[in-house]
Amino acid sequence: MQAGATTTPPDEDGYELWLRYRELPAAARRTLRARAGALWLPAQPSALLMSAATELQRGLGVMTGRALPLRRRLAAGQVVLATPASLPTLRKAGVPLDDLGDEGWLIRSTVLGGKAILLIAANSDRGLLYGAFALLRALATGADVPTLDQRSAPRLPLRFLNHWDNLDRTVERGYAGFSLWDWWKLPHIVDARYTDYARANASLGINGVSLNNVSAKPEMLTTAFIHKAAALADVLRPWGQKVYLAIRFTAPMELGGLATADPLEPAVARWWRGKVAEVFAAIPDCGGFIIKANSEGQPGPHDYGRNHAEGAKVIAQALAPHGGTLIWRAFVYAAENPDDRAKQAYDQFTALDGQFEPNVLVQVKNGPIDFQPREPFHPLFGAMPRTRLIGEFMVTKEYMGFSTHLAYQGPLFEETLKSDTYRDKPGPQAGTLVAHTLAGMAGVGNVGTDRNWCGSHFDQANWYVFGRLAWDPLGSAQALAQEWTLQTFGDAPGLVKAVTGMVMPSREAVLNYMTPLGLHHLMDTGHHHGPGPWVGNLARPDWNPTYYHRAGPDGIGFDRSASGSNAVAQYAEPLHSLWGDPRTTPDELLLWFHHLPWKHRVSTGRTLWQELLVRYDAGVASVDTLRKTWAGLAGTVDARRHHEVSQYLAQQQREAQWWRDACIAYFMNASGQRLPAGVAKPTRTLAEYQALRFDYAPGRGG
Amino acid sequence: MQAGATTTPPDEDGYELWLRYRELPAAARRTLRARAGALWLPAQPSALLMSAATELQRGLGVMTGRALPLRRRLAAGQVVLATPASLPTLRKAGVPLDDLGDEGWLIRSTVLGGKAILLIAANSDRGLLYGAFALLRALATGADVPTLDQRSAPRLPLRFLNHWDNLDRTVERGYAGFSLWDWWKLPHIVDARYTDYARANASLGINGVSLNNVSAKPEMLTTAFIHKAAALADVLRPWGQKVYLAIRFTAPMELGGLATADPLEPAVARWWRGKVAEVFAAIPDCGGFIIKANSEGQPGPHDYGRNHAEGAKVIAQALAPHGGTLIWRAFVYAAENPDDRAKQAYDQFTALDGQFEPNVLVQVKNGPIDFQPREPFHPLFGAMPRTRLIGEFMVTKEYMGFSTHLAYQGPLFEETLKSDTYRDKPGPQAGTLVAHTLAGMAGVGNVGTDRNWCGSHFDQANWYVFGRLAWDPLGSAQALAQEWTLQTFGDAPGLVKAVTGMVMPSREAVLNYMTPLGLHHLMDTGHHHGPGPWVGNLARPDWNPTYYHRAGPDGIGFDRSASGSNAVAQYAEPLHSLWGDPRTTPDELLLWFHHLPWKHRVSTGRTLWQELLVRYDAGVASVDTLRKTWAGLAGTVDARRHHEVSQYLAQQQREAQWWRDACIAYFMNASGQRLPAGVAKPTRTLAEYQALRFDYAPGRGG
Repeated sequence: MQAGATTTPPDEDGYELWLRYRELPAAARRTLRARAGALWLPAQPSALLMSAATELQRGLGVMTGRALPLRRRLAAGQVVLATPASLPTLRKAGVPLDDLGDEGWLIRSTVLGGKAILLIAANSDRGLLYGAFALLRALATGADVPTLDQRSAPRLPLRFLNHWDNLDRTVERGYAGFSLWDWWKLPHIVDARYTDYARANASLGINGVSLNNVSAKPEMLTTAFIHKAAALADVLRPWGQKVYLAIRFTAPMELGGLATADPLEPAVARWWRGKVAEVFAAIPDCGGFIIKANSEGQPGPHDYGRNHAEGAKVIAQALAPHGGTLIWRAFVYAAENPDDRAKQAYDQFTALDGQFEPNVLVQVKNGPIDFQPREPFHPLFGAMPRTRLIGEFMVTKEYMGFSTHLAYQGPLFEETLKSDTYRDKPGPQAGTLVAHTLAGMAGVGNVGTDRNWCGSHFDQANWYVFGRLAWDPLGSAQALAQEWTLQTFGDAPGLVKAVTGMVMPSREAVLNYMTPLGLHHLMDTGHHHGPGPWVGNLARPDWNPTYYHRAGPDGIGFDRSASGSNAVAQYAEPLHSLWGDPRTTPDELLLWFHHLPWKHRVSTGRTLWQELLVRYDAGVASVDTLRKTWAGLAGTVDARRHHEVSQYLAQQQREAQWWRDACIAYFMNASGQRLPAGVAKPTRTLAEYQALRFDYAPGRGG
Repeated sequence: MQAGATTTPPDEDGYELWLRYRELPAAARRTLRARAGALWLPAQPSALLMSAATELQRGLGVMTGRALPLRRRLAAGQVVLATPASLPTLRKAGVPLDDLGDEGWLIRSTVLGGKAILLIAANSDRGLLYGAFALLRALATGADVPTLDQRSAPRLPLRFLNHWDNLDRTVERGYAGFSLWDWWKLPHIVDARYTDYARANASLGINGVSLNNVSAKPEMLTTAFIHKAAALADVLRPWGQKVYLAIRFTAPMELGGLATADPLEPAVARWWRGKVAEVFAAIPDCGGFIIKANSEGQPGPHDYGRNHAEGAKVIAQALAPHGGTLIWRAFVYAAENPDDRAKQAYDQFTALDGQFEPNVLVQVKNGPIDFQPREPFHPLFGAMPRTRLIGEFMVTKEYMGFSTHLAYQGPLFEETLKSDTYRDKPGPQAGTLVAHTLAGMAGVGNVGTDRNWCGSHFDQANWYVFGRLAWDPLGSAQALAQEWTLQTFGDAPGLVKAVTGMVMPSREAVLNYMTPLGLHHLMDTGHHHGPGPWVGNLARPDWNPTYYHRAGPDGIGFDRSASGSNAVAQYAEPLHSLWGDPRTTPDELLLWFHHLPWKHRVSTGRTLWQELLVRYDAGVASVDTLRKTWAGLAGTVDARRHHEVSQYLAQQQREAQWWRDACIAYFMNASGQRLPAGVAKPTRTLAEYQALRFDYAPGRGG
């Protein structure tokens, strides 16, 4: 909105996120004023509708420079928030709402009963809430008011943000301070910030929030914490979000004093029914529960000789009468050591397809290991046709430089969502994209107490793109990056092009300097910060980077083809065959599926060793480019945010170099390969990298 | 500054603290503009002076509505920041600076060389920094510019804020979120908030900050953390604050790999010399170290058969060549069970008077137990004439309702500081006030990541009053409350009187509903939230509330008179005799020093039991009054802060009632006393109060 600005804009701290309303330029302001002089609402508006109205008053008020009074008499020059129920003339005027469902919206400049208005229409007040944000987004991204005509409905019913927030306010894999939820002061003291959080989610269409870490403590279900959660639900409800609680499978023992949590035990079923009733008495519209069972030390039905469907049944049946949902995570791995951890979820869960209760959703991570910078899509997508699946994506960057590194995840999410599973569904498409197999998307959130919410300004883009893709999983990461940039930094000349040019290649940059060519899980132990390809001494083989890269004098990579673990067989044809053969496996997944000799030629004609070196150097060089582009935006972006991002990029450059140097030093040592002429030697010795300590690294949770 | 305002002022979130500059009313603005059109600075100003200048530009710029350019040519209508060195004409003009020392300041409207200016003068740039804040404070509290003439110098050289911040960012006894220090991102990523913290401290004259918890982790002295601390020192330095590090006595073993930390061992001395050199290479003006030794599980010299002076010597001698100070805390209690914990520090430390190295300061808590809502002053004050003592005060409210309860600590600090020790010093005064015995004041800080810094708006007053009393320990809590209110909430009609009328009696309210008549340490275990007078099962007798109140059928109170522990003998006459006899002990210390039968008559003529009940009810009633007064300020205070404080006061009322009810229920049970007619029965049964659980209470640290 600052086109032609010649002085540096005023400092900002990032708190406003993309809901950063600014006065429009004079011409646009005049045009908008003519259509936004007041706000029409029906009598007795719902809480959802009042949220829409207050947001419009806030946003349009700033954009036009004039307050918008609420009106109940329809007149020209109004913004009208209407459903067919509240304004029957919508139907008569033929406003097309039939395909918008319960949550979709339409915004258009139109004439209704002879009155020129700016219409926000939907079949429900929830649709109007989303439409209100859509109008504000359209205006902030330069839409032409007189010709405005947009419509959208979400493709997925559940758009779900997962907080891995512990009850002591630490956040597992949180890099933005601590939990927003001030549990101690709740339920009676309610932070104003909760409302701004709810507004941000609503602007993206997020409609479910799980409040606490899936590595759950039983105390979440104590009466005290249920009432604290209820106070948060009261804040989120008017912004269209249901609350979910993460629960612990053994809560009947820990809270109920039972001797077992066996899901087939009647006393256990009774306990769950009673506890669920208590939850719904406090939170009548509670979304339900989410559970991490038999995974990473959490208890589950296997401890009682039951399978996941049996474990889910007892809790799902307790939730069903209240309309609650149980979300059962498929991120499991067995206590015993498998030949390939990547295969386990598929093996366990496909066998249970069709056995889950109707109100159970199975939540599957985007890839088969654990949120690596790149994984092939999870083979469960499309492989459980009788089960509703949620795709789980990690918004917080456990494996991509925490909140320090600029790494826009839009391309990662898009890559997964648009992967063809080749699992046919009835219908015209040749195959079925991952996006088509989903009933919902879950994002492991990246918000915390940091003033800018996400730990860095650019990490706000990851919250944004997750939410917008949950609304439309076939959306474009590039288009969403532009949308985010316009709202977050404005439209000064050259800015959108420059920022989009930074964010779009940023994930590939990270892949290059961390884990090129399908390598994965090379990070250091526990905190997952920085390189640790040498780590091979952990109790479980599949916790060790050496288990995943298998670098030695003979070559590098994890053989998941028929000669190895054969995990590739979990994919449908033609993927099974394509990825089962290194000659037809794309470079970016090469070492995910194959163990290959160092002299193996990749698609560029270079040997594997040469290509690895090229990629590592390219990754470091990309960060240099990020810094240069950003430096060129001094004066265009406000000084505070410009300085802050500059600090982060400088740190990213140091750490990219460290990743490159430490990994090359290690792989030279493991392989016996030498550096070709012209390739820079690592700055320090391998032993020096191995000796680095990172005391009190964040995000390890509790 | 909003006199006569008829609409509710705009929302505020409290981030600005008392540095809340607002445009002055028209008449005052005109007057100020005539004297503050520009800012005179000498050539090549120091960093301290530039801090003063930028703060004046910020504050005066808002107050006058006009930017203040910097000038090097003296002219009429300027604000002049000058020392005799930078502006020799000060001496010629006879500006009286001789008694201001290195840190004092003078501000006055004056004529210099025929030019009418607003002068800030001092003997050093540090004095000018404090003078700049003094000018802004004077203007914000309504000073008349044409007649302005103020001067002040600090009475104590060390004005010291102690962070009990852990390296994982939890804060021991912190109730305002988490540590401001984002250790992980330091040293290269430096949060803008650190500067605002430094400004707030500078505005009070605080000149030293210890960064980490005195229950110290050895990693504070790793190379990585030294460099992180150095980055913070770089932020604090231009605002006049030196950094201190809290250290662990056994660091030579934990970091240095030595087999012992015995202070007489040459290898240990060598290790400390090397580590101190490393610290001062990174932080050349480091203040030094603070240590908690042989206290609450921390290691110390007793573990090697050495006394505190011997333990301090090895570290102090390492610090001395660099100009560093060692602050040795006197909060100690022996591993074995004493007859009275209150006596230990005095016994151990008076024996060592004169034995500490010259660069050691001994830091003594305000009272002999542990920051209770009321304690008699610590008997060490005045009793170590050959040792420099620092008085340690708790700004964070571990024992006074966390950040939830409104409890202004000014009266507590003032009560201690103005207590007469009756330890004569040469000079005119009959005795010696505690304030006269001090070389510094330390405050255990209450700041954290919460947007309002302190967890609640009113807790900002405790930071403020601590800092201002550290500057002048003979200051008035009442006057400082007014000063704080004017800067924090403005000068709307009736506001200062109402707010001061809330804060001044608030500590007595807390005493009444928690621990009347000299009772102490009645809170629940570990988290110290809420009542727990029944707790008597902890491993050490002196951790139990029952140890302190000794309530039974025969009476209540801790006998510290000659018939008991005789702790009273640690006080000089006439206190020893006065407090040794219940008839001459003031009611507010009665049960601190005496165990008395329930039928004992107190000064009001009531029995002890009757008086206890009256006090508990008075405490609850006081909170009701706080709420009523605050409700009357709706529309005078901005809506956001008004709502937030209202939530807190409602919680305080619930918790005051709980304290009253639970304590009365317990004392009835312990004593066999009954409730007289007209006294309300506790709402719940004793067993119900005892069954309450407080999972994940904040502030327990790590």
